[in-house]
Amino acid sequence: MPCRHLCILGLGMIGGSLAGALKQHGFKGQISALVRTESTGERGVSLGLVDQFSTDPALVIPQADMVMLAVPMLGMRQQMQAIAPYLSSLAIVTDAGSVKLPFIQDARSVFEDMSRVVPGHPIAGREKTGVDAADPALYINKRVLLTPIEQTLPSATATVQKLWELAGATVESLTPDHHDRVLAATSHLPHVLAYALVDTLATQQEAEEIFRYAAGGFRDFSRIASSDPVMWRDVCLSNRDAILQSMDNLDTHLKLLRDAIASSDAVALEEVFRRAKTTRDTFT
Amino acid sequence: MPCRHLCILGLGMIGGSLAGALKQHGFKGQISALVRTESTGERGVSLGLVDQFSTDPALVIPQADMVMLAVPMLGMRQQMQAIAPYLSSLAIVTDAGSVKLPFIQDARSVFEDMSRVVPGHPIAGREKTGVDAADPALYINKRVLLTPIEQTLPSATATVQKLWELAGATVESLTPDHHDRVLAATSHLPHVLAYALVDTLATQQEAEEIFRYAAGGFRDFSRIASSDPVMWRDVCLSNRDAILQSMDNLDTHLKLLRDAIASSDAVALEEVFRRAKTTRDTFT
Repeated sequence: MPCRHLCILGLGMIGGSLAGALKQHGFKGQISALVRTESTGERGVSLGLVDQFSTDPALVIPQADMVMLAVPMLGMRQQMQAIAPYLSSLAIVTDAGSVKLPFIQDARSVFEDMSRVVPGHPIAGREKTGVDAADPALYINKRVLLTPIEQTLPSATATVQKLWELAGATVESLTPDHHDRVLAATSHLPHVLAYALVDTLATQQEAEEIFRYAAGGFRDFSRIASSDPVMWRDVCLSNRDAILQSMDNLDTHLKLLRDAIASSDAVALEEVFRRAKTTRDTFT
Repeated sequence: MPCRHLCILGLGMIGGSLAGALKQHGFKGQISALVRTESTGERGVSLGLVDQFSTDPALVIPQADMVMLAVPMLGMRQQMQAIAPYLSSLAIVTDAGSVKLPFIQDARSVFEDMSRVVPGHPIAGREKTGVDAADPALYINKRVLLTPIEQTLPSATATVQKLWELAGATVESLTPDHHDRVLAATSHLPHVLAYALVDTLATQQEAEEIFRYAAGGFRDFSRIASSDPVMWRDVCLSNRDAILQSMDNLDTHLKLLRDAIASSDAVALEEVFRRAKTTRDTFT
């Protein structure tokens, strides 16, 4: 059954972009938003993203047949608790969080029935935040990963999949723990690294000159350090073990490179650089 | 006195782009290339980048009033030795190398007279290599850093500056050791890091999935890992101490972040991420 009334929790860049994409692609149902501040909701309506909004779950949750949690990871549980008393027993609960195991754990602690909980993660984002950063084209040709659990009804997963496909995305499924390990390496580690790099340069004596003479490569490399600090704080806390493992793997490789540079080992350096280039050129 | 006959050594992406930019912006003189293989020179002529080429320094060096060394750092000395016997005593020798102190050291070991040696470094590049990657627009609005030494004639520096400005670049001067320290942080470290990151992911078990689920952030972040392995091997060997220092600075910051993640220190994480975002948003 297709979604007829979607309520988005957290009308930021991620939730707002989904709403805008659905509107643009002929979504037939209603879209509402549960927001913390009136001004965000008003902006969402005036931008044409949502039909209505409220700061009170009692006014928007009962009529929703799908609820999309698009809030930072550490806000998930509280939001679920806030909506639980008003949620229809037939409503699907899905999310856009970057880490899936903690979301599932939070959901289990709030909902007795997990059959309509569909954990999800759109692999798309911008370093801009807030409802004004919403972009209806954000998900076009992007991947959305769904990580249904054993209890999840296949029909619920299918309904969420159709919604994301309408927004332009390609949907794939994998297990939650697999998702969290892979994303630690491919997304969470690069963000930590970009933040660490910019912070390293920012706290050096010659910070101003360093940024003045930074080339395009640095700009691309550090772009993700402009991402939302709260979102990424939460990702780090939520996917701690997998991220620490990824950081340790990187540390091993950095130490090998450091040794090669310190000992002027031209052969080792060229080998690593060549292998990385070949891999990058092959996969992207 | 403006340059009347520029001979470029190494007709790759960097040298080829300069030649193309000069041609496009009405450079009045001749442009020749000293190349290792005939095919590169032929391609340079057919692309309209250079007027003539040779694999023999005796045929292109004597008439040049400016020689531009655009070869990997470790090839500089050998190239200078090859051209020295044929070089006019009035010719300016300049370069496009990423590290300045070793270039100066190499030049001192080859040339008795350093008054017409103008060390330079265009802060521009692509991850593509070779003459076919030449782009006449590469230097537009990019910075070129010149690092003249005490003996360098101001008139020689001015002539090189005019050439780069004709190619569309903005020229600034700083001391060679300052250049090498700043660039270690802003360019060399990010490259080492990007290579290390891609190599880390490439050698993990789930490599294929990791790249399959990589988001745009990772693509931007890892773009510079597609850069020329030989060029970057040489940079690492040429600017060893400054790069090691930068790597150690980063390591300190990564360790702090690792500790904050391991101990679930939300305050510390948010503080670092926020500072990095503010810095990045301010400077770029």
